[in-house]
Amino acid sequence: MVTDTSTATPFATTLPGRYYHDPDIYRQEQERLFGRLWVCVGRADAIPQPGDYLTVDLAGESVLVVRGRDGVVRAFLNVCRHRGARLCTEPCGHVAGAIQCRYHAWSYGLDGRLLGAPNLRDVDAFDRDAHGLLPVACDQWGGLLWLSLAEDPPPLAEQLEPAILRRFGELDTVGRYRLATLAVGHSITYELACNWKLVVENFMECYHCAVTHPELSRAVPSFKAGLAYQQGVGARFAEGVVALTLSGQTTRPPLPGLAEQDLGTYYGFVLLPNVFVNLTPDHVVVHRLEPLGPTQTRVVCDWLFDPAVMAEPGFDPMDAVAFFDLVNRQDWEMCELCQQNMASRAYRAGGLYVPLEAHIRAFNDFVLECLEG
Amino acid sequence: MVTDTSTATPFATTLPGRYYHDPDIYRQEQERLFGRLWVCVGRADAIPQPGDYLTVDLAGESVLVVRGRDGVVRAFLNVCRHRGARLCTEPCGHVAGAIQCRYHAWSYGLDGRLLGAPNLRDVDAFDRDAHGLLPVACDQWGGLLWLSLAEDPPPLAEQLEPAILRRFGELDTVGRYRLATLAVGHSITYELACNWKLVVENFMECYHCAVTHPELSRAVPSFKAGLAYQQGVGARFAEGVVALTLSGQTTRPPLPGLAEQDLGTYYGFVLLPNVFVNLTPDHVVVHRLEPLGPTQTRVVCDWLFDPAVMAEPGFDPMDAVAFFDLVNRQDWEMCELCQQNMASRAYRAGGLYVPLEAHIRAFNDFVLECLEG
Amino acid sequence: MVTDTSTATPFATTLPGRYYHDPDIYRQEQERLFGRLWVCVGRADAIPQPGDYLTVDLAGESVLVVRGRDGVVRAFLNVCRHRGARLCTEPCGHVAGAIQCRYHAWSYGLDGRLLGAPNLRDVDAFDRDAHGLLPVACDQWGGLLWLSLAEDPPPLAEQLEPAILRRFGELDTVGRYRLATLAVGHSITYELACNWKLVVENFMECYHCAVTHPELSRAVPSFKAGLAYQQGVGARFAEGVVALTLSGQTTRPPLPGLAEQDLGTYYGFVLLPNVFVNLTPDHVVVHRLEPLGPTQTRVVCDWLFDPAVMAEPGFDPMDAVAFFDLVNRQDWEMCELCQQNMASRAYRAGGLYVPLEAHIRAFNDFVLECLEG
Repeated sequence: MVTDTSTATPFATTLPGRYYHDPDIYRQEQERLFGRLWVCVGRADAIPQPGDYLTVDLAGESVLVVRGRDGVVRAFLNVCRHRGARLCTEPCGHVAGAIQCRYHAWSYGLDGRLLGAPNLRDVDAFDRDAHGLLPVACDQWGGLLWLSLAEDPPPLAEQLEPAILRRFGELDTVGRYRLATLAVGHSITYELACNWKLVVENFMECYHCAVTHPELSRAVPSFKAGLAYQQGVGARFAEGVVALTLSGQTTRPPLPGLAEQDLGTYYGFVLLPNVFVNLTPDHVVVHRLEPLGPTQTRVVCDWLFDPAVMAEPGFDPMDAVAFFDLVNRQDWEMCELCQQNMASRAYRAGGLYVPLEAHIRAFNDFVLECLEG
Repeated sequence: MVTDTSTATPFATTLPGRYYHDPDIYRQEQERLFGRLWVCVGRADAIPQPGDYLTVDLAGESVLVVRGRDGVVRAFLNVCRHRGARLCTEPCGHVAGAIQCRYHAWSYGLDGRLLGAPNLRDVDAFDRDAHGLLPVACDQWGGLLWLSLAEDPPPLAEQLEPAILRRFGELDTVGRYRLATLAVGHSITYELACNWKLVVENFMECYHCAVTHPELSRAVPSFKAGLAYQQGVGARFAEGVVALTLSGQTTRPPLPGLAEQDLGTYYGFVLLPNVFVNLTPDHVVVHRLEPLGPTQTRVVCDWLFDPAVMAEPGFDPMDAVAFFDLVNRQDWEMCELCQQNMASRAYRAGGLYVPLEAHIRAFNDFVLECLEG
Repeated sequence: MVTDTSTATPFATTLPGRYYHDPDIYRQEQERLFGRLWVCVGRADAIPQPGDYLTVDLAGESVLVVRGRDGVVRAFLNVCRHRGARLCTEPCGHVAGAIQCRYHAWSYGLDGRLLGAPNLRDVDAFDRDAHGLLPVACDQWGGLLWLSLAEDPPPLAEQLEPAILRRFGELDTVGRYRLATLAVGHSITYELACNWKLVVENFMECYHCAVTHPELSRAVPSFKAGLAYQQGVGARFAEGVVALTLSGQTTRPPLPGLAEQDLGTYYGFVLLPNVFVNLTPDHVVVHRLEPLGPTQTRVVCDWLFDPAVMAEPGFDPMDAVAFFDLVNRQDWEMCELCQQNMASRAYRAGGLYVPLEAHIRAFNDFVLECLEG
């Protein structure tokens, strides 16, 4: 049995199945892709005050992201330089002035410098300056924190802007949503039993929308035809729909600064390797992916709103949350169905992208290029 | 310590210990033995109607076994040819006419042909005939469904009949039990913490019967002497015993068509790689093994009866079930005790088969031959 | 980021991080270190009577330790020589005269000789003497049972005494505590999420004491200064402290036979590879380590007292237990904090030992030497 006669297909193929489950390939991705690129790890407004910190996992490393006394956010490997103890163990918290190791009390400034180490004051040979925390490149875009474990990474904008330009032809559309000024109204964390690339591939096509997303397809008719990136820059809402809620209505005004064409329009785009942005008139949804293993992915989904609207009495984000949470769960189920067959002999050479999905292959080629690099 | 002085033994040896726990050997077995031979995966009467299906796991593949509109049972890899989604996710169920993928709605006939794929009607280059479900060889014997993942497997009978002929010298004895006409009166699924081969080896010898199976040994005296295959074709019940129940009695008549010599007789045999058949006058017990990992095995045990007897008011299979369930659990405990030492240095070269067990070595050699092949 | 500028340090370094998490290195340690050295597995007074036994895990082997009719403790691989079944399955128990396999009833004497095997009486070719249980070297020191899986290990004293002599310069101090005469008043088993070597390294230094152990440092002032092995043979209690309890007091008299200088003194030492001994005036605390995996270690901690004192009405060990249990838990937390970063790129070359910790490097070199051997 099992003679694969599909090699004659004229269509692009996905990556071979092993790319979606093989632990060795996962390790290579962690090292060469997530361990080198700028990767989004959270939001800058999660640590508003000096001394506020996050601990995040990136490519196998625990990274401490902390706002300094000067207001600048910096990142360091969360590792004491003495005997290697983990310094901060909570997902987020606040330190007052210094980061002190609990094992032998070596202490570091918020800028990473070694401030003191007991019993070493009189040891001439000890070079305190050489024993500060090891820095990790840290930058921000649209209110998001991005880290790079690369030795000398290029500027963050060099990674993000070309993707926006390819998608929109300009930077102005995204700019009108002033992402850095928005605030989180609600957040949901999902754990998916699938490889992270299946989630990216799912987000990039709408061939499945008519089948998997009846509510979304009613709200955005071009999705029903499977058109995602092919119908122009934005996708227009159906007649009478003003918001991506189950009712199609909302009491929230459009975000400040939007243009006429943004009303009644949905824009979605991917910031590789791990962010999806969904722009709608009254709110923005940002997905952030964290690969947890070859067949396990965490997705943190934030619903963002105008802080002025959030401050109004009676503000309730749940109509927006209910809609995209439904769409999310529909997608996760499909991603997990695919994962189950990634090790099948039927998928050794991968599957097909039909013409409506052909653009996804560029993402696969991007991954291959990173792995070779 | 630990000088093994037993190398001078004149006895046959088991396989070296690593064959019972090494993940690499397990993978080879999955690929070369369970991935090539005909393997029993269930019963044909579990899917009596067109559209009824089973999903079964075989050598790492999910296989969809479905009865067609023509009544023929066919098997396919349970993998959509488009993006690889798992098609049917329940262990068993019914589809009405077509198998449709939930991701992008590609749909397949019960014979595996691709019936339709959205948005591809006008794509000339798309060869629909080349994108049917990938077939898996499927056949039946004695009411059991057997699959083979081999490219071009020999007929099922070529695998099964030589084993029966070696055991019985003819096919008639087994034939008298008309296995395909019997029905399941009760079924128990066991999960054992041991390698599947220990279960086969346990079934093949009765040297342990006097120690491990006092009830069975009372009912079948030759077992108490450790004689399994060595005492002639069948093993006679003790004086006054008419059925393998705890009381030795039963209200069930003998199965229709049995010969005089079958009454008061137990016949056991193995259909490699994964079926044990136990023929008794009024019922048949069939064990089916599913290796789940190097040290984990599922055993599905079915108690089969004459459907005419089952239809009678007051039919109760539990006297038969209680007996062999007790024997089963006694065996599983022994198999698991052995498993615990398979990685010991004491078992690096394997253990011994005493003369009463010497025939088991043929099974070990069969496994080695499959692994080489 | 992440340029390690610490290579210029004049300090000794720990082992590279991989030594604390790599499964391959763990396997090598199990084979070459724990599989060859004398390793402590428990206490001899746990099996006081002939026929009493322990089953213990050592370097992947289940070992049966049993007291013979002659009162001698012997050890054997817990493996039936026939088909490999585990013989004794309880952690401890009693057998009456013979050890019988439950599978086929082969039976062995308490001295390991094969006493009988069913159906083999008349098999001339079977050499019963060659099929006794495989012996494991077994000896005792200070009431502790030690095993060696080595083929022909040196005497136990050759492994233990040099360590005591290096630490004390003589054997008399330890001898005064008559360890073999003491009895267990309380025992706690801990499971730590860290490599066993981190636990050894933690025990060997007191640089962390001031930070991690405020109670201990108050009781033993030299510990507050980080002095463990550097302040002379024993560490003196603070003024007014007579026992290592939270109050510093106790109703227990000193152990019989101690010298004047032992009162108010704490002596700690390591018996590699897996025992820590803590001598205090009125009780002794013994830690025994069992590596369970690359990042998992069991520690069994026994509090030992004079049996005559234990026999007195109202004996209560819990003041002593509370103190060292607190110290233990403080230590385990630090060991686990270190474990979390052992795979970090910041620890690829290991961490530093400051001068107060420099002596630990000898332990690391001992491990490396074992791995090479």
